[in-house]
Amino acid sequence: MGHPYAPPELELPGFVPLKLSQGEILVSYLGASLFVLLAVWLVSGRCGRLSKTDRLLMCWWAFTGLTHIMIEGPFVFTPDFFDEVWKEYSKGDSRYVARDAATVTVEGITAVLEGPASLLAVYAIASQKSFSHILQFTVCLGQLYGCLVYFITAYLDGFNFWVGPFYFWAYFIGANSFWIWIPMLIAIRSWKKICAAFQAEKVKTK
Amino acid sequence: MGHPYAPPELELPGFVPLKLSQGEILVSYLGASLFVLLAVWLVSGRCGRLSKTDRLLMCWWAFTGLTHIMIEGPFVFTPDFFDEVWKEYSKGDSRYVARDAATVTVEGITAVLEGPASLLAVYAIASQKSFSHILQFTVCLGQLYGCLVYFITAYLDGFNFWVGPFYFWAYFIGANSFWIWIPMLIAIRSWKKICAAFQAEKVKTK
Repeated sequence: MGHPYAPPELELPGFVPLKLSQGEILVSYLGASLFVLLAVWLVSGRCGRLSKTDRLLMCWWAFTGLTHIMIEGPFVFTPDFFDEVWKEYSKGDSRYVARDAATVTVEGITAVLEGPASLLAVYAIASQKSFSHILQFTVCLGQLYGCLVYFITAYLDGFNFWVGPFYFWAYFIGANSFWIWIPMLIAIRSWKKICAAFQAEKVKTK
Repeated sequence: MGHPYAPPELELPGFVPLKLSQGEILVSYLGASLFVLLAVWLVSGRCGRLSKTDRLLMCWWAFTGLTHIMIEGPFVFTPDFFDEVWKEYSKGDSRYVARDAATVTVEGITAVLEGPASLLAVYAIASQKSFSHILQFTVCLGQLYGCLVYFITAYLDGFNFWVGPFYFWAYFIGANSFWIWIPMLIAIRSWKKICAAFQAEKVKTK
């Protein structure tokens, strides 16, 4: 029995095809994500002292944390259970369905360390902890390092893991780009806040 | 022509054996490293205001930065030039001589980003910049993430890349362990300093 992934010579013994359609998978994931974003936005609005930026950041950290734990976690630890999302995504990167070591490694680190740390960031922002910025910065760096490993290994291993240009741009580049530009923006913001805190300390001790 | 690495079935067409002995390679690297550590310690002592911890950190960052750039850099970008060190190290991990994608990726990120950033940390500590802690923290996280990818991919890919227990413990575990416990200690220290700066800011604005 064949498989729909690239390159065609990729061997996937015992492959079970997708049961759900592309639409069913994307609508479920995007719908659930939208629900999380909206719920966190509304709940965080009831904490009067939080700025809009902080509320937006809480939405992002809740969404990305749940994605790391509930989508990427099962891929690493229970590959046969809840695997429809990854069978669909593999049209853009067959290394997922082939269980490439570098891909499983990055996803494992993301699910185990960055997932829970993202949810901790929601709490840290809400309660204005002094570790809020360094925690957010840490998770952003982890996400950026993971993306670097993900893209560079794809390049070194032949760069031919997608079914066609649509899946290359929409899945391989498009979906992952959110975990590049958003962590980059947050990391720069937290870096600046941290430097400002040391500047303030210096001025104070002068 | 055979090669001295594990697993024996590993194919290395056109392999050119080591020219230098193990002793020559180790003594050169350790000697040069000791020279850098000593030089930075002595020079930093002439800046009166620096604490002993800061001077030790400058020694570490100079040593690790130069290692990243001068040892790991050539491995990634000029694999046939200056390759004696890596032919020796490959007795502890043949993925280097086999140019495994995950290994080349981690070394590439380390050489290009963490190398120069380590040297910048020497300067940042010496001139007590406000970005000194967040920069040191950033490089430590990169080194730790790199080690995680390095060890987890080795595990997933079969964990059989060393010639024998000596090379496993001395090279694969021993040599790398410095880039785990030292970054961990520095990262914890910088995390605490950053939290303390925010605490101080909070107290001040109250």
